[in-house]
Formats: sequence, structure tokens, C-alpha cells
Amino acid sequence: MWEQAWLDYKRLKEDHWFWGYKTIVTQSQALRVQTAITELNKAAQTMVVGEMSIVTSPGDVEKYVQLVIDESLSDSLGLEGYKVQLHNQAIILSAAADTGILYGVFSLLKDIRSDKGLEMISGQSVPDNQHRMLNHWDNSDGSIERGYSGRSFFFKDGQVLVNERTVDYARLVASVGINEVVINNVNVAREAIDFITDKFFEPLAEMAVIFEQYGIKLFLSLDYAASIDVGGMTSADPLDKAVGTWWEERMKIVFNRIPNFGGFLIKADSEGRPGPFTYGRTQADGANMLARAVKPYGGLIVWRCFVYNCQQDWRDRKTDRARAGYDHFMPLDGTFDDNVVLQIKNGPMDFQVREPVSPLIGGLNKTNQILEFQIAQEYTGQQRHICYLVPMWKEILQFKTYRQSTKDTVADIVSGKAYKQAHCGIAAVANTGDDENWTGHDMAAANLYGYGRLIWSMSLSAEAIADEWACLTFGPNQTVLASVQNILMASWPAYEKYTSPLGIGWMVNPNHHYGPNVNGYEYDRWGTYHRADHKGIGVDRTEQGTGYISQYFSENAALYGNLETCPDELLLFFHHVSYTRQLKSGKTLIQHIYDSHFEGAKDVEDMFDTWTALEGEVESKVFDRVRERMTHQLVHSKEWRDVVNSFFYRISMIEDEDHREIF
Amino acid sequence: MWEQAWLDYKRLKEDHWFWGYKTIVTQSQALRVQTAITELNKAAQTMVVGEMSIVTSPGDVEKYVQLVIDESLSDSLGLEGYKVQLHNQAIILSAAADTGILYGVFSLLKDIRSDKGLEMISGQSVPDNQHRMLNHWDNSDGSIERGYSGRSFFFKDGQVLVNERTVDYARLVASVGINEVVINNVNVAREAIDFITDKFFEPLAEMAVIFEQYGIKLFLSLDYAASIDVGGMTSADPLDKAVGTWWEERMKIVFNRIPNFGGFLIKADSEGRPGPFTYGRTQADGANMLARAVKPYGGLIVWRCFVYNCQQDWRDRKTDRARAGYDHFMPLDGTFDDNVVLQIKNGPMDFQVREPVSPLIGGLNKTNQILEFQIAQEYTGQQRHICYLVPMWKEILQFKTYRQSTKDTVADIVSGKAYKQAHCGIAAVANTGDDENWTGHDMAAANLYGYGRLIWSMSLSAEAIADEWACLTFGPNQTVLASVQNILMASWPAYEKYTSPLGIGWMVNPNHHYGPNVNGYEYDRWGTYHRADHKGIGVDRTEQGTGYISQYFSENAALYGNLETCPDELLLFFHHVSYTRQLKSGKTLIQHIYDSHFEGAKDVEDMFDTWTALEGEVESKVFDRVRERMTHQLVHSKEWRDVVNSFFYRISMIEDEDHREIF
Repeated sequence: MWEQAWLDYKRLKEDHWFWGYKTIVTQSQALRVQTAITELNKAAQTMVVGEMSIVTSPGDVEKYVQLVIDESLSDSLGLEGYKVQLHNQAIILSAAADTGILYGVFSLLKDIRSDKGLEMISGQSVPDNQHRMLNHWDNSDGSIERGYSGRSFFFKDGQVLVNERTVDYARLVASVGINEVVINNVNVAREAIDFITDKFFEPLAEMAVIFEQYGIKLFLSLDYAASIDVGGMTSADPLDKAVGTWWEERMKIVFNRIPNFGGFLIKADSEGRPGPFTYGRTQADGANMLARAVKPYGGLIVWRCFVYNCQQDWRDRKTDRARAGYDHFMPLDGTFDDNVVLQIKNGPMDFQVREPVSPLIGGLNKTNQILEFQIAQEYTGQQRHICYLVPMWKEILQFKTYRQSTKDTVADIVSGKAYKQAHCGIAAVANTGDDENWTGHDMAAANLYGYGRLIWSMSLSAEAIADEWACLTFGPNQTVLASVQNILMASWPAYEKYTSPLGIGWMVNPNHHYGPNVNGYEYDRWGTYHRADHKGIGVDRTEQGTGYISQYFSENAALYGNLETCPDELLLFFHHVSYTRQLKSGKTLIQHIYDSHFEGAKDVEDMFDTWTALEGEVESKVFDRVRERMTHQLVHSKEWRDVVNSFFYRISMIEDEDHREIF
Repeated sequence: MWEQAWLDYKRLKEDHWFWGYKTIVTQSQALRVQTAITELNKAAQTMVVGEMSIVTSPGDVEKYVQLVIDESLSDSLGLEGYKVQLHNQAIILSAAADTGILYGVFSLLKDIRSDKGLEMISGQSVPDNQHRMLNHWDNSDGSIERGYSGRSFFFKDGQVLVNERTVDYARLVASVGINEVVINNVNVAREAIDFITDKFFEPLAEMAVIFEQYGIKLFLSLDYAASIDVGGMTSADPLDKAVGTWWEERMKIVFNRIPNFGGFLIKADSEGRPGPFTYGRTQADGANMLARAVKPYGGLIVWRCFVYNCQQDWRDRKTDRARAGYDHFMPLDGTFDDNVVLQIKNGPMDFQVREPVSPLIGGLNKTNQILEFQIAQEYTGQQRHICYLVPMWKEILQFKTYRQSTKDTVADIVSGKAYKQAHCGIAAVANTGDDENWTGHDMAAANLYGYGRLIWSMSLSAEAIADEWACLTFGPNQTVLASVQNILMASWPAYEKYTSPLGIGWMVNPNHHYGPNVNGYEYDRWGTYHRADHKGIGVDRTEQGTGYISQYFSENAALYGNLETCPDELLLFFHHVSYTRQLKSGKTLIQHIYDSHFEGAKDVEDMFDTWTALEGEVESKVFDRVRERMTHQLVHSKEWRDVVNSFFYRISMIEDEDHREIF
């Protein structure tokens, strides 16, 4: 069996105000109103020991929850927003559509479980982003690429799974506002073949119906070369009419067989995958061909911008992987059909613990776009280390692109506020699997929860989100909440400190990306170099170097391009710097490396002690699970510290000022 | 289909003296005399277009080949030696047993095919080593650990294969004197389970019968914990009587079901495998328990000495993997049963391009021992690079241990000449697979051929062996022979030059062990460190360091221990040396690193040109295959050169005196 993560509805305290609420009032028969009622009653059964009665009118009951669909609210709330008001003691939840009611009920349940007073629950909420997406990298054999939480619950042995866990998955992610889900791995082309054939239509349709009850649209990853692999044609040339026709016919079948189907996520011409480049065509040619085929059904084509040369020669210092996304896609701005959305990773590389924001965001302004985060901690501890990513995501969202004088942050742009594109939003690679607790590390659930909450409401603070999640997960115990928030908020800075310094990234073991290996990628073909020698380290991406810096608007180009103004945390991403150079902190670069690695490992000791002190306050099964993983983190953070410090000591032979042990 | 490697009997020139020989004279019905006749006729059919007639007496025929078994020759020839004499034009091949006749026929065919004059073929030959063994690391699923020549021809999909290729395999290896073969991988315990059960007995028996025709004994790798894994017992404690009894019963079945069965190869307590240590017992306790169980059937237990701590902490500079074999086994000298043989790798580490000789050889003198080489080029180019290993093996065999004043070379000791143990000899990890040409790279066949020939006759020169092999493989074309010999003789020195310098080894990518990665193992758990820093490189294994050096007798300890006398090629194995230290060559260490890497890559260019010039002289299919692999070697040797030179330049910042391009 599996647990319920933050939807584990525990019995409320005896004096909780909600005990008096035993009635749901509604006149709606809408699909997701019924889902909302089911959820409310599922909660009531365990929170207050008993289902609520459902009536169309309150009569003389004073304490009730009323669910009201009022289409006139759509101007202020859209179809997904909701409003909670109190009439005396009655709780009136209104929305313009049933999806809003469902989100409102999840919100209400959160407030109830957080011990908010009745008088505190009024308010309204509208999502900041239209597309709020999860990308699962699950393979049909049941494995998960970059999965750290067990096997897939979507697939097993080449078959699609649809069962009670599908429902609980939908509940979990809908409860934090996710409205689109790609269930299969976008990175393995041949993986995607079966998905648009008879083989999978039936279970996919069944899954899509479940998702629909929770306001979620099913998406699939697509094999760009399916006209060959499935269609048996000889080409996948997007300008070949026969190829286009094949897609039109195939899409008619797909949308016909799978109800509530949203569209496709595609990675083409990347890391060995075929794509329009194979035929000398542009990325826009490829995306638009597919877009035309899905257009009649309101379908979307989400096109990943992760296109770069993964056969780079490490001896070549001019080619720069960081440039690739912008170089490929910027010239195409305005040439994509209106049902194509470009999906852009937050940084120009690949989900490192620290990267600058991709210059494509803010660059493109005539193209639909979705920002891509990674909840799965591929490079940030793989759910064996705690690394709460919401603070990082917030920094990214708040980044000012200088595209225009106002409304030009990443948040403004990807939400569509800045340029009013037809389709905008945020996607993220999910961190779930069939582990009992969904995310391997119990604490990693804070990232899944936090992702949903943050992209719904981008002004929420990382601390507030941590607090919400901790309260729903561990209950409203102030000691626990304070400790968990401390651990979570300390975790990303700590991970950055004891791993790769100052924006350089990539000091991991190749392939599996876990554990320290300073030179792991240095002489390899992936374009991920640190260029460390005896005198210094870092990649010159200024005009004198790879020129990447000119992809930013002038304010950021100037900021990053000047060694004096470039923020320390990104210094080595933009500059090759001497070990003896003084940073803004007053320390030399080499001393910063030593200090931050000792500090980061020490921070983990503190996090560990903070958790250990919670013994008895947290359910023992969960306490032990977390302690076990933190014990590994404790040892492994020291391994990181020692390997990285030794590497830099050996190459620089500059002594640590504090004479600590370096090997 | 597959080719015949060096047994490809091509039509002889019209004027070859052998054309007149159409008669085989023999009175023997012995098994391997029949095999010898079959082989002679197989050769005659294609060499001279026609089988020979077999008679018991020559009558008035003058040109015939007579096969004579004369037991009185056993004092001078043993049971495997043979003698060739001419009586007028008759060729008289005599031996004390049928195995000798078979070896004699293979030798005679070699001489015929090498265009030796009839008058040159007299002589006698007796093998220098009693046990001449091949170890195959083939898994029952058909994969081969460290296999670079395709899949297994012994196994497929969990089944044993016995077919025409089994016969051709036996012919090939018997033709170079191999008399014992372990067909399954010794490194994967659970792999070995099926081999001592009903599941495999039938095909194994069939294979053993084929092998017997060629003088080969079948051996198997054994799961030390089979009493648990097969027997369902709770223990594999060698001092537990019930465990011993289980083994006795099981061995009775095994030897009963598989005829001509030789015994077992075992790796215990190594790299995660269970063994006697698990029960607090010695390696001798474990080996002797098994030895008692196979003793009634004349069986042997070959026990690998590859036991070390593979969970080493890289920060620990006292623990030394090189010490492990000696530390574990030396105290047990004299405690092993007389049907136990210790199998000792040539070096203390693991088949690097350059290692000192294991001090266990010469250390042990009251214990049966087999020296272990690796024909499979795990660390020496994986049969994509040419690396002819016979010169390396010869150096090892000629190494003087100083165990006693005379007869103390490795050759003297492992052949049993020095201490007259009951069982001695040499084993090697094979390099074969189901590729058409058996060894992936055509040139890698020289190592398989050369291994057999060298351990039969340790005084043969590497050049002579290269010449023999080239002649049998490409025919007696002097241009080709000279070129191939040049390429082969240049290959090991070249490989050493462009890879890891001065005995340090290990600068490969972890796991698959291919391609340059200077720090690949540096911070890992395998005990294989170079300890390079800004000032110098190397591992101090003197008394001041790990103390490994004291495992040698004083003459060698003094030679290696003194920085002045330590041979350059092993300098960094024994000492941590400054980059600016002058070597015996007069160059500084760092300049030697740069120079040797440029030279090694240049040597490959020369080898490539030498081969390319043979176009038209060598069968085009073979020519192309070799050229394709050499083209890769050409590029890849430059990758080695550049990565290693860049690493050392970056860490030392000492300029190349010749200002060549270093990245």
C-alpha cells in the first residue's frame, strides 16, 4: 500500500470548529463538484468521523459548506479560481466553474487542517499560471529516468497501469493545482511509439477520464519520428506533405480514442533524438507540422528547447553549450503556430544547483512559452539529500530580464502577464514513484507540494510554503513546524556550499549524476567544463570568451560581464578567475571554496541534529525513514567536502587559512 | 559462420615438399591419435587437395607421416611432449602418449605452413608448464565480462551451447597447447550456481567429451556459497562438518556426471563475493574443504588470490591494495592441501599496462601456484587498440625474485622447476567471443596464440612468436610478416607511452575501464590512486609509505626502494616524485610525461601507416577490419595524449619545452 502524503486526513482536535459542519449544500451536478464532494467527505470521514449530508438548500442548518457555481464570476476568477466567504457561520465557496470548486475545497481542507480559525478562511484565489504542468519521465517498462522514488505507478512491464493509485495521484497533484500531466518519458523516442497506437488507447482513455475528474488534462510525450517508426514511412521531414497527412490522420485517431486529451510534449534533435534538423528544417517547421495536426482538437504541442551539440570536443573553447538554446530558438521568435508552446529550462545548462536564468526567457516575446523546472533532484541530491528547491525557483521567478521597464521578471513573462501569449505557464519534471511515500525521501514531498503551490501563486514565500506542507504532513505541532522549516530553508544553501562552487556546477559522476567527481565531465563531450588549472577556474563567457553573455539584455550583460559586479554565486559561470582573487565577501576564491565546503557539511550536521531532536514528535516510521536518509547525507556531504577541497588543494597547493584537514 | 584464425589451412604453393606426402602410418587407435589424424586430413584437404590414406605400415611408400606411441619416451617427453625425426623422407612423429601425438601434429602443420624445409622439421618439444589454462569470463546469459569480441559461444540465454564451434574452439586452443579451460565467469558468484546442478550436466558432459579429444580438461568456476545457494543450507562455513559433507556429496555427483572433468576455479571474499572470511576462517580453510571434496576424483581447486578491500577510503594513505594478496596469503604458505593451487595475478593490482611482479610469486614456496595473465585487453585497449602482450609476459617471466641464488625467476617458480610443487603453471583470462574472427581485433589473436606458445615454451622470443602467428594467419609473405611484426612489437610500448605514465596505471574511466580519465579512480573506493598534486605524483610504497616494498626480497626491495635505482618505468608505482625531478633519461618527470604521450600517439601513426601499406597484400576483408580499428586507435590515442597532457599541464603549469599544443 501507499501513503497519502499531505492528503493524510488525520482526526481533528476535539475543539476544532469544523466538528459542527455536517452539511454540504449544492445544486450543482457538475463533474468536478461531485469530485469536490467526494474529497470533502473522504476528509470528513477521518477528520471528524462521519460523512456530511448533501442537500440542495441549507434549511435551518447554520453550519454548512455551500458549493456555488456562478458563471458571472469568470471575469474575476476565471474558470479555475474560487472565492470563500462566510455568511454567519456558513462557508460559501463560489467559482465560475466546477474546477474552481474543486480547488476551493482542497484549499478549505488545507485551512481546516492547519487550525486556521473559522474567521480566517475567507478570501479568493486565482492561479497565476494558465498551464501548470508535471512531466513524468516514466518508461513503459516501469523504470523512471532520473527517478529516485521507486518504479513507475503509470507503467509496468510494457503496460499502462490504471488503478486506485492513479486516483490518489490525481488527488495529490490536483490538490496543489496541477492541471496538466505528461505521463511518459520525453527523453527516449522509441519509448513513445506505443502511445499513439491501439496498444495503449484503452487504458489511456481510462486514465484520462480519471484525470478529468480532477481538472487534469492528460498529455503524452511523442516520438518525432513516428511517421517512420509507427507509420512505416521513409521520412519524418516536416515539409513533406505525406508526412503531414500521416500526422493529421493519426491525430484524428488519438484525440478520438482518448477523451480529455491535451496534446504532446516533444524533444527533438537533442541528445541523439531525431528531429527537423535531420531534414535540414527548422525547429519551427517541425513543431508547426505537429501543431496543425492537433489543432482541430484544441491540442497543444509543447516543444522542448533542450537542443545542443552533445558531441562537443573538450579542446574547443569557443563552442558553448550554454549558448545553444538561444542560438537555435531566438531567430524563430514569432514563427511558431499559436498552439505551439516552447518549454524552456530555467537555466541554459541542465538543472544545476545554481545557474543563471536562460536568456531565452525574456528573449522570446512573440512565442508561447513554458518555463521548465526539475522537481526530481537529479543534480541536487537525488532525494537522498534534502534540498528544498522552492527558494531557488523563487529567485528564478523574480529575476529581472530587462526586456522592458516593467513587468519583465521571469514570473511576468512565463505567466503571460508581460506579452499576453495564448499559452504560458510552468512545467516541472516530477519526483514521484511507487515508493510508499511517493517521493523516496519524505522531505522531497515538500518540493512537489511547493512546486504546485508556488506556480499557482507566485507571491507565496518559500517559508510559507514550507510551513503549509509541514503542517499538512506532520500536523500543526509548532516544534515540528519550526524545525522542519529550518531544515528545509537551510538545505539548498547547504547543498550548494558542499558541492560545486560559485555557479560552476557539474562536479558529479557522469551518467548517474550522483556524488562528487570534479573532473567527471571535464574531458568529455557534454560541454560542461570548469577549466580548472593550477592558477584558476571558471569559464569565460564574456565577449572575450564564448560570447554567451551577449544573449542577455544590456543591463544583465553588463552586470555579469564585469568581474567587479558579477554576483559571487555565478562568478565561475561567467569568468575564469584566479584562486587568489578576492571575492565580494573579502575572501579569496580558494578560501571561499574551502570555507563553503566545511560550512556546508557543518550545516548538514545541524540539520541532522534538528531532525534528531524531533524523535517522539513525528510518527516513528517517518522519523526513522528521514533519519536514515539524513545519516547518508551526513556522510556523503563530508565526502563531497573532502573530494572537492582535496581537488582544489592539490591543484592550487594553497593552504587553508584555518589549517583544517584536507586530503 | 566463423573463421579459423591461425588454423586457416590455405593451399600450399605448388613446389611445397608436402605435396608428396599422401600417407599416414600408425598402429595406434588412441583417442587423440584419431584426433591428430582428423586434423592432419582436414589440413591436407585444403593444403594439398586430398585426404591422406591411413595405413598400419608404410610398405614401399617413401614419403609418409608416421605416428608412433612409445611409452618409453615418457621419461624424456612426459605425456605431452613429442619428437619429430626424419628417416630418409619419412616423417616420424613419436610421443609417449596420444596427447603428445596431437601436439606434434599441430606443430608439424605449423612447420609445413611456414615453408620450413623438410630438413628443418626435426626436433623435440616438451611443455615448460604442466597446467596451461584459459579462464573464460563468460556468463550463462551469453554476455562476457570484459569481453571485446562479441557474445559467448559457450552460453546463450541461460543455456550451454555445444556445437561445431565448440570443436573449432578446442582445435584452436589445443593447437597452441592449452590443456585446461574454465568456461564460465569466476567473478559472478550466482552465475555459477547452475553449473553443479542437473540443469547443465548433460551439455557440459558433451562439451567435456569434445575437449577430451583435444587433450583439454574442462574446469568450472564455482560459487563458494553453493551450500547455501544450491544446497539450501544456512551456512558456507568451511569448518562446519555439514557443509563439508554437502560438498562431498555434491562433488560425487558432479564428477560422476561430467567425464574428463578437472575441477574448479574460485574467487572468494573478493569484490563482494562471499568466502571463508564471512565465517572468520582462513582462505586455506575454505580451499581445503573444497579440495577434500574433489580429491577422490583427482580434482583440483584453483583458488584466486585476488582478495583485497574494495571499500577503501581514499583519504587513508596507509591501506594499500597492492599489499593485500601477500598479506592475506603469505602467512598460509604450506597450509593448503596438495590439490589446491593458488592462482596469482602477475601484478599486485589488476592487469595494468605496467606493474611490478606480485611479491607472492617467489614468496610462496610450499604452495602450488599458477600465474595469472589477462589476454583480454581490459586495461590495454580492449581489442580496439593493438597491444601485443607477449613482450610484457616475457618480462614478467624473466623477473628475478631473489628467492634463491639460482632458478628463481618467475618462470622457474610458476613452472615448478624451483620448488617441485605437485601443481604449477599459468592461466590467463581469454579474449575470445563469437565474433567471426574470434577476437574482435584480428591482431588480438596474436595474444591468444602467443599466450599458448609462450607458456608451452617460455624461452621463445616475442618476435619469434609474432612471426609464427603472422605467418600462419597471413601466409608466408615476407613483406607482411615484417610489417606485422613491427606493428606488434611497437604496440605495447606505444600503448604504455600514450596512456598512464611510469607504472602509475589506472587513468581510465571507471567501470568499463576504457578511455582516459586521470582522476577517474582517484577519489573512489578501489585503492587505485595516483595522488597527483601541483608538485608531484606517485604512491610512496617504501617503508616510509605503505611498506609494500618490504614484501619483496631484499635485493628487489633495495632496487625499488631507492629513488636512484628504481627503474623509471615503475617509478611512480613506488615513489611520490616531484614533476621537476630528473629521470634516468635526463628528462624531468613532467617533460617525460609530455614527450612520451606525444611519442606514443606518433607511434600509432607509424603503425597505422605500416598497416595501410599492406593494402593488396592482405585479404581485403581482414585488411579493412584491421584498418577500421586502427583508425579508431589513431583518434583515441590522441584523445589519451591530450587528456593526460592537459591534466598534468593544468595541475603543474609547467610548460612543455617543445611548446607543442596542450589544452
